[in-house]
Amino acid sequence: MEVRIAHSNLPRVVVIGGGFGGIHLVNKLRKFDVQVVVVDQYNFHQFQPLFYQVATSGLEPSSIIFPFRKMFQKNEHVHFRLAEVEKIDSANKEVLTNIGKISYDYLVVATGAGNNFFGNENIEKYALPMKSINESLRLRNVILERFEEALGYEEEERDPFLHFVIAGGGPTGTELAGTLAEMRSFVLPKDYPELDLSHMRISLIEGAPRVLAAMSEQSSQKAKEYLENLGVEIHLNTYVGDYDGKIITTRAGEIYEAHTLIWAAGIKANFVDGLPEETRGPGNRIWVNEYNLVKGFENVFAIGDVALMDGDPNYPKGHPQLAQAAIQQGNNLAKNIMAIVSNKPLTSFRYKNLGAMATVGRNKAVVELPRRKFAGFFAWLVWMLVHLRSILGIKNKWVVFMNWVWNYFTYNLSLRLIIKRKDE
Amino acid sequence: MEVRIAHSNLPRVVVIGGGFGGIHLVNKLRKFDVQVVVVDQYNFHQFQPLFYQVATSGLEPSSIIFPFRKMFQKNEHVHFRLAEVEKIDSANKEVLTNIGKISYDYLVVATGAGNNFFGNENIEKYALPMKSINESLRLRNVILERFEEALGYEEEERDPFLHFVIAGGGPTGTELAGTLAEMRSFVLPKDYPELDLSHMRISLIEGAPRVLAAMSEQSSQKAKEYLENLGVEIHLNTYVGDYDGKIITTRAGEIYEAHTLIWAAGIKANFVDGLPEETRGPGNRIWVNEYNLVKGFENVFAIGDVALMDGDPNYPKGHPQLAQAAIQQGNNLAKNIMAIVSNKPLTSFRYKNLGAMATVGRNKAVVELPRRKFAGFFAWLVWMLVHLRSILGIKNKWVVFMNWVWNYFTYNLSLRLIIKRKDE
Repeated sequence: MEVRIAHSNLPRVVVIGGGFGGIHLVNKLRKFDVQVVVVDQYNFHQFQPLFYQVATSGLEPSSIIFPFRKMFQKNEHVHFRLAEVEKIDSANKEVLTNIGKISYDYLVVATGAGNNFFGNENIEKYALPMKSINESLRLRNVILERFEEALGYEEEERDPFLHFVIAGGGPTGTELAGTLAEMRSFVLPKDYPELDLSHMRISLIEGAPRVLAAMSEQSSQKAKEYLENLGVEIHLNTYVGDYDGKIITTRAGEIYEAHTLIWAAGIKANFVDGLPEETRGPGNRIWVNEYNLVKGFENVFAIGDVALMDGDPNYPKGHPQLAQAAIQQGNNLAKNIMAIVSNKPLTSFRYKNLGAMATVGRNKAVVELPRRKFAGFFAWLVWMLVHLRSILGIKNKWVVFMNWVWNYFTYNLSLRLIIKRKDE
Repeated sequence: MEVRIAHSNLPRVVVIGGGFGGIHLVNKLRKFDVQVVVVDQYNFHQFQPLFYQVATSGLEPSSIIFPFRKMFQKNEHVHFRLAEVEKIDSANKEVLTNIGKISYDYLVVATGAGNNFFGNENIEKYALPMKSINESLRLRNVILERFEEALGYEEEERDPFLHFVIAGGGPTGTELAGTLAEMRSFVLPKDYPELDLSHMRISLIEGAPRVLAAMSEQSSQKAKEYLENLGVEIHLNTYVGDYDGKIITTRAGEIYEAHTLIWAAGIKANFVDGLPEETRGPGNRIWVNEYNLVKGFENVFAIGDVALMDGDPNYPKGHPQLAQAAIQQGNNLAKNIMAIVSNKPLTSFRYKNLGAMATVGRNKAVVELPRRKFAGFFAWLVWMLVHLRSILGIKNKWVVFMNWVWNYFTYNLSLRLIIKRKDE
């Protein structure tokens, strides 16, 4: 069955995925003479960098997600379809989805990346990831439930309930560890006077020899210092080997007892069925050339976390899987699609590293710009400004800002709500 | 297993349910020398009167629910336990819950009321109720999904997807119908330019001869007029007989084709297992005397929607199941429990009707105070003020107020987000 979409004489560009790459691409394309169909399994764009604040009761989901239909309201050539993509049928130039087939002239795969459990089914079953708004909400519920559960046990049995282990010392793991540590200091003692929260532990496990391994030694060192001052236990050069929901065993055989393991240790690109196996590169990413064309195709592109570019001389192993790379590729691809449509020469993609940043807690962040590195209060302000600027929608910016101001002055993350279905 | 709660020499009052009655009771009790244990299946108080705004994408759940632990933070004698009550064992003065037994000196049943499907399993299975924040969120998801689904069909097949039938013309049904009608005018055409929304229908089915049957003829008439001007189809003297998810059959044999039936047609008190059958009155409510003492007991009370008082001369058939009655009973019972503890005489409960109100849409509401009835813009302002005043927490008041201002001026309910689990 064909998905019903208004007939148009314009060439049709189908975009799978409305993440950072997808929406920046569409944002540019909508000014041109193409019909755009955005397909996503959610009806909203998700602002991943702030998921950790949802998981720690600081922000509502609605503040950092944005409905696609609202985004595209004024663009009659842009159509949205809520659907899950099952397969690409490139021979017939069609995308097969759970609601039917969608034909394309040009296809852009912008499916991003999901969790990588490195093939360990136990970890997949028991660890809690945070790669979607749903997972972030579930994590919020679980974190709060651990304290409720702990109340039911004798003091000497409570420790595993109060031990939160985070696997992965990248920005997500670091930011989450810092926020949990601040909850322990400021919020939880007021909510749980019956628990001795000096028993609450936050452990950060990282395989590399330093946290924030993608940043400089200096920033890693600073972040580690911040975390340690907040009382986070850091275990470097350590990999999670297994987890049964109660006991974490590291590859070296060490043991941590914890009822909560949060998984921020690895991502795996969302390769799409139907593309030839030879386009699958390391990390499940799709090999593309310098125009983001999937190897062997003339009308199928991939951008963002899922794309692995062979052709940017400065990044021979592909670009970092960051919002910045996705956004830049989305913008460049929009230009190239228009160039193809109007028979003009294409522009090779060159990634421009705009810097990296991570926040650890109140007044504490590390920022690396191309020419400057800094840390502390000013870095924290920069981090907030950059994130506020990137959130979609004036209302969302305002709501997030007000929440931050509120939380900063009241020391009170106010969304400590366990909202879930009966059977969860 | 006994639920662990700090030992205290004070008499212990266990309160089942943190709705309007429960929290007003506790709010008073915490100033006295009793130990209070609040048991609820959620970790937050829910502000039911605004559920319909959550269901129609106008408010976030977090704006109208409030964590119990935050509420009781400063009261060392008040304890909260997240648990579902299974049974009352009055012989042993214990409440049995899914996390263990809780003993009491005094017990207050404040379990409120749930949905009444009048024994019809089909309706229970296919209709969508709105008596909890979860149900309201689910309704939000379903309403939005209907439009996404409709897109997949030919124009002549879309009507049942775009037909929203509401059973029950009380405040909930009326408010929901009005808001859906306004979404049809202001929000949905922008989101769904591909749908012809003149085909969207909103039908309100009410068994009584008028909507808002608990209010005066005059207010009913006004509300009906408002609804009709908004394009709501009203069917009075009509009862839903059956529903198979697609076809509603009324008791008189009429047929409405609609993929969505919203159930606001009846409530049924949440009687608690373990109380003697003779305490069960009409509507599943628990018979209490004028001190809210459950018939036959000296230390078990019931308040609010679940209580059916025999003894208020002005309300021989019991009080209306409204927030006001629950709040007044909670306040009066706090005084009486303290009177019992200190061997003082008890005060009979007398319900003071403070009035009733309902809103139908922008600038449209009906208000009945004891000495005055009015409708229109001023009534709408009063409605908003009274509701803002009743919402717990300064932040929530502020957030709800800002949302109302935003929605009023932008004509844009901004939370059109389908957030659900994969398997829903």
